[in-house]
Amino acid sequence: MDRTKFVLDEKKMPTRWYNVLADLPEPLPPVLHPATGKPVTPDDLAPLFPMELIKQEMSTERWIEIPEEVQDIYKLWRPTTLFRAHRLEKVLDTPAKIFYKYEGSSPPGSHKPNTAVAQAYYNKKEGIKRITTETGAGQWGSALSFAGACFDLEIKVYMVRISYNQKPYRRIMMEVWGGKCVPSPSSDTKAGRDMLAKDPDCPGSLGLAISEAVEDAVSRDDTHYSLGSVLNHVLLHQTINGLETKKLMEIAGAYPDIIVGCIGGGSNFAGLFLPFIRDKIDGTKPDLRIINVEPASCPTVTRGPYAYDFGDEAGLTPLLKMYTLGHGFIPPPVHAGGLRYHGMAPIICHLHKLGLVEARAEHQLATFKAGITFARTEGIISAPEPDHAIKVVIDEALKCKESGESKTILLAHSGHGHVDMAAYDAYLSGKLKDYDYPYEKIDESLKDLPSV
Amino acid sequence: MDRTKFVLDEKKMPTRWYNVLADLPEPLPPVLHPATGKPVTPDDLAPLFPMELIKQEMSTERWIEIPEEVQDIYKLWRPTTLFRAHRLEKVLDTPAKIFYKYEGSSPPGSHKPNTAVAQAYYNKKEGIKRITTETGAGQWGSALSFAGACFDLEIKVYMVRISYNQKPYRRIMMEVWGGKCVPSPSSDTKAGRDMLAKDPDCPGSLGLAISEAVEDAVSRDDTHYSLGSVLNHVLLHQTINGLETKKLMEIAGAYPDIIVGCIGGGSNFAGLFLPFIRDKIDGTKPDLRIINVEPASCPTVTRGPYAYDFGDEAGLTPLLKMYTLGHGFIPPPVHAGGLRYHGMAPIICHLHKLGLVEARAEHQLATFKAGITFARTEGIISAPEPDHAIKVVIDEALKCKESGESKTILLAHSGHGHVDMAAYDAYLSGKLKDYDYPYEKIDESLKDLPSV
Repeated sequence: MDRTKFVLDEKKMPTRWYNVLADLPEPLPPVLHPATGKPVTPDDLAPLFPMELIKQEMSTERWIEIPEEVQDIYKLWRPTTLFRAHRLEKVLDTPAKIFYKYEGSSPPGSHKPNTAVAQAYYNKKEGIKRITTETGAGQWGSALSFAGACFDLEIKVYMVRISYNQKPYRRIMMEVWGGKCVPSPSSDTKAGRDMLAKDPDCPGSLGLAISEAVEDAVSRDDTHYSLGSVLNHVLLHQTINGLETKKLMEIAGAYPDIIVGCIGGGSNFAGLFLPFIRDKIDGTKPDLRIINVEPASCPTVTRGPYAYDFGDEAGLTPLLKMYTLGHGFIPPPVHAGGLRYHGMAPIICHLHKLGLVEARAEHQLATFKAGITFARTEGIISAPEPDHAIKVVIDEALKCKESGESKTILLAHSGHGHVDMAAYDAYLSGKLKDYDYPYEKIDESLKDLPSV
Repeated sequence: MDRTKFVLDEKKMPTRWYNVLADLPEPLPPVLHPATGKPVTPDDLAPLFPMELIKQEMSTERWIEIPEEVQDIYKLWRPTTLFRAHRLEKVLDTPAKIFYKYEGSSPPGSHKPNTAVAQAYYNKKEGIKRITTETGAGQWGSALSFAGACFDLEIKVYMVRISYNQKPYRRIMMEVWGGKCVPSPSSDTKAGRDMLAKDPDCPGSLGLAISEAVEDAVSRDDTHYSLGSVLNHVLLHQTINGLETKKLMEIAGAYPDIIVGCIGGGSNFAGLFLPFIRDKIDGTKPDLRIINVEPASCPTVTRGPYAYDFGDEAGLTPLLKMYTLGHGFIPPPVHAGGLRYHGMAPIICHLHKLGLVEARAEHQLATFKAGITFARTEGIISAPEPDHAIKVVIDEALKCKESGESKTILLAHSGHGHVDMAAYDAYLSGKLKDYDYPYEKIDESLKDLPSV
């Protein structure tokens, strides 16, 4: 049998991140200040982020050096493994060659620490002692807590209260790494206290948690704020994954015809495909297809307009040009919590607008079915998010069976589902249902997008 | 900085298991039939196990070929990585060099599938359709369910009812891989029904679950029984880990002065140290120290007599010569469920009796403290079982700091704690306590061991 795994020696781990902004055929629309409608300046962002990250956010340099201190932490689990899915191929009886790059071997079990570690490092270097953030299901909060442990930073996580109560395992992970996690709304901020005064039983929302984290950060000189997806510098840090994958595919003697990944804010999948899309932009690989998979219940790219909108529910952030379902949109309660976001990384949206990537929306029942097939062949129990991508990989592999084509399909696998077992239980016991995007109930904020 | 990780190419994965029975300075005491007091014959064991496994149980051949089909499955996650714990060393400020071989990257998150996959294969080859087993906290049941998915075998797991109710994640994992899991006592066996008639609320015990699994297996021609630790063939399969580690330590240019691992039934640690102990037996490495770590609440090797006893609570199994706390002993409810066993692998006991390995007992609070230190330096959140070994590794590294010696310490790390977060929560919130071995309440079965 051909190899099952392709592993890169840690001494060959990429030492630079790839910045796609250097290679875009048209420049990315700028981020705008909501008050002025003009592009934000570094100074506008300085209360929230260290200057190095702000520079990266705006840089058009193609390559950005990964600091040695960050590389040292990456080596705790990186480079990650590229797998050939022999057993999945066999069960599907497909001539397609399926590869997957697996990010579940990091300490928190996902791709998230690729940026959490970098962000913690630059904050530490600027003398910051404390970072605040928000988290939904807890994947991001646990990754940042891990990063805080690496650089001796205090991490304060505002976790949406309903998740805080329903998903204690992620909160405990944060605490094991020394992070502090409070349910949002909390009594620690004015935004939280105001909400609790109105509704003591408020279940919370990601938007409110962002408001609390931002208020906390700007109110203290020793504190910054951190975001786990969407922004350019976050996608930049994730390109370590795609750069490794390119080297590994070369070792495997293959190049993908199709790359598939799930998108919530977009950072995991962009991190994998950006180093490949360079070959499409420069004409080397004109036929490369890149399929972004989102939930049918939250079909940002497949159904939203391309417009300027806020990144958060409360309207505190600068305005980002993106596909959006409206910053007030609250997605149905699908189990893939990491894909429940009204907007999308501006870089992915721009590439979609330019016709360089495609998008597809999937219902959750079919994605869990695909996840079970994957677990019973490849062993790995995936998080509900990558199950969305696995569904599309299986579809494409079965098309190859029909057509007799032996395409090479590459899956961006963002992480394991060890702390998402309740979702599988609901699926296996028939308690899960599908949700459509509520067309009949378009969010008000979508009808009245900020005019800039 | 020196390397963080040492990785073996899958093409260099060992293709044979190592059988220490070929190299023992004195032969292992035989397994006895409880009725006759004579050594058991292969025919005695045939209703429960396939003949290939029975042969392995009794073999004194030094090397046993790993079937290609088993190697193919191993390659889904093997060879596993050897880490150098640079960050832990730094925090401890020790001149010791600490290495750990990590088995948490397997699909179920532990070393258990090393034998589960092999056992499933040999059963499949003998025409068996179905395997029964018992599980406590669920680590073994989930590994066997994964192995069943690999070879299309039906797996039926009798899970101790109190764990079934308290630890649903492991049960769900089994179901994702297609295993069937019922709480024990169940209404599926006479043993279970009898107990339910006596006590409908019976919380179950590992002994009763074994009785159910064995009764189920012997009552059907298409069904066998499987055990996840203790027996010679289980330890044999686990030696894949130690053989890899030997090769990797060579690549690292190091040889351990001290090897540390936790022992419940003993299979994980024996799997790592057996290929090394060969060097001690033949005089090449006379000073090699091998430290077995067990819970202070269940101090089998450090406090039990060396005698023939049953492997299970109900007295159904053959008699094994081992250190034992009495087959009726129910260990205190420490969180390291995998270490709560009254007996120990006969191979480990024999080596201890011969003075080739040592043993140490640790209280759980100190082990969780060590586990947190490990998580905040090396990233990995460990299961409560390997936390016991980490505690001793830290102690030995601090002794090196005192003495100024730069010893090489190798840790057998059996797996992650992603589904054990409740234990860390209890520790961090101050709700955990230590348990001593109840000397004042020696188990009756220990006072009246079988006379053979």
